[in-house]
Amino acid sequence: MRISFQELKQEFKRILLKLSFPEETADSCATIFAENSRDGVYSHGLNRFPVFVKYAKKGFIKPDALPSLLEAYGVMERWDGNFAPGMSNAAHCMKRAVELAKVNGMGCVALKNTNHWMRGGTYGWQAAEAGCIGICFTNATVSMPAWGGKDPVLGNNPLVIAIPRKEGHVVLDMAMSQFSYGKMQEYELKNEVLPFPGGYNEAGEMINDPVEIRKTRRALPIGLWKGSGLALVLDLLVVALSGGNSTGKISEHADETGVSQCFIAIHRPDMHDALIEEVIAYTKNGGTVKPGEQVSYPGERTLQTRRENEEKGIPVNEEMWMKVKGM
Amino acid sequence: MRISFQELKQEFKRILLKLSFPEETADSCATIFAENSRDGVYSHGLNRFPVFVKYAKKGFIKPDALPSLLEAYGVMERWDGNFAPGMSNAAHCMKRAVELAKVNGMGCVALKNTNHWMRGGTYGWQAAEAGCIGICFTNATVSMPAWGGKDPVLGNNPLVIAIPRKEGHVVLDMAMSQFSYGKMQEYELKNEVLPFPGGYNEAGEMINDPVEIRKTRRALPIGLWKGSGLALVLDLLVVALSGGNSTGKISEHADETGVSQCFIAIHRPDMHDALIEEVIAYTKNGGTVKPGEQVSYPGERTLQTRRENEEKGIPVNEEMWMKVKGM
Repeated sequence: MRISFQELKQEFKRILLKLSFPEETADSCATIFAENSRDGVYSHGLNRFPVFVKYAKKGFIKPDALPSLLEAYGVMERWDGNFAPGMSNAAHCMKRAVELAKVNGMGCVALKNTNHWMRGGTYGWQAAEAGCIGICFTNATVSMPAWGGKDPVLGNNPLVIAIPRKEGHVVLDMAMSQFSYGKMQEYELKNEVLPFPGGYNEAGEMINDPVEIRKTRRALPIGLWKGSGLALVLDLLVVALSGGNSTGKISEHADETGVSQCFIAIHRPDMHDALIEEVIAYTKNGGTVKPGEQVSYPGERTLQTRRENEEKGIPVNEEMWMKVKGM
Repeated sequence: MRISFQELKQEFKRILLKLSFPEETADSCATIFAENSRDGVYSHGLNRFPVFVKYAKKGFIKPDALPSLLEAYGVMERWDGNFAPGMSNAAHCMKRAVELAKVNGMGCVALKNTNHWMRGGTYGWQAAEAGCIGICFTNATVSMPAWGGKDPVLGNNPLVIAIPRKEGHVVLDMAMSQFSYGKMQEYELKNEVLPFPGGYNEAGEMINDPVEIRKTRRALPIGLWKGSGLALVLDLLVVALSGGNSTGKISEHADETGVSQCFIAIHRPDMHDALIEEVIAYTKNGGTVKPGEQVSYPGERTLQTRRENEEKGIPVNEEMWMKVKGM
């Protein structure tokens, strides 16, 4: 079943307005949820919407809160998210970073007391659309042990890096775990094992079994000791810059709220477009292991899915769509 | 055999002065080589020094060149390295980023036409010593295929992130390959296989055999498709910001020269030190798989090695030391 972008967005907005979201916030959040589904990130589009509504009803997300400036220091600002919706907070902060960058070459906005931003890539695409390089990262509740460690102490702390490009922005959006728990659940539901090791069993052995990993909560960081270090460093950066909650602090509660984030934008008179094209062409030119396949740059498949879904409508899980229509 | 820091540095400096390096450049490069060995990174300390000398003799490194400012744009600057030594160029650019950050909260210096910076961590430690968060990255000659690709088209493009801390700076210094070719050679010389998959054989299968990987030149990116994307994005960032050579361009020549780099410094009135300590303590508190071991933060072991080598002298490979003494 496929739904138009407008229908999806209107439905989200209707529900958010019913939940006392102010017009502008409802519109911004509904747009982002619909865009995530449109871009093929269904896990953070329609399929996530009911959880967002639950969090709003529980009071973790404050519909009428707005972010407020705590401190401005040169091209750096520190904001309090005041537990407003994570997406409108994040979009606001990237917009602010872009404004600072357009005047000063660079801008950095650190944000505390915010909520899940859904798809991190959203704010990378936003910066790139504005002609800026965008870099952003967030912390999250614990999901991985540190390298050599037993209990989960690190968040999957997604990192987003976007580079504007006429033929389609390059947008890297990667979490620090090799597979998210959501992705592992997909394999579990299909009764399949992971194609590569994704975590540890109780004995500390690296395994491909999603059921076992979801039980131990010992997901594998990308690059083993390297991703473990990077996840820790991203938590340190958001905490040092925002003064907000660390992964450890967030994880004291079962529900993920009050996370810390950072948004950096870089602007230049020109981004050396011809050189960017040269790099993309070179990377694609290395041949493929399987004949007929091709190497993609980060963001390329997203753009393909977007175009397809804009043309044919956005695929929805019918059960989920009915659930949302009934809200 | 152990040598004092001073003796090591003096020996390097003597040789560089003989090669017509100006006093200041010779001192700066000799200091960095000696520090790399002192910190236990022997591969980019004493053991690398003869290659550096060879590159200077071949004219790839210009001893008397200095970096020059191409463009200043708010808190961003673009410099030409003029093929001066990579270490003095990099140290200069991080110093400049720190100066910009101390006035504006943030500074970014992009650098083209430079040479290998040896240990990237050097410039992270430098920023942290100056009280700043330091982020820097470089491109490099090809060493890995892109995800799904066959021929190497990506550099291992190291990324450094440093956070200042009274009890010892946190300094992450990671290349995008799971194992460097140098590390693989170490395993090969010991007739050992890698403890985790490190690349592909001719058939495109993931393998642990360092001999085979060194033959195919198909090293594995950290986190599989994720590190492949990150390596590409880092190359795009340095090229877009500096206007310099990409990994593809650098790889047209057998010898690695004319690389592109980026140095970012962030300064704040306070870095929320207590929160940083909280994160470190929490991460260390998750228990370990093997009893008696402990979880380390990035930079912790470097500091332990530094202290040990400062006390007992710096271990040197005797053959290499004799070779350098005879230069």
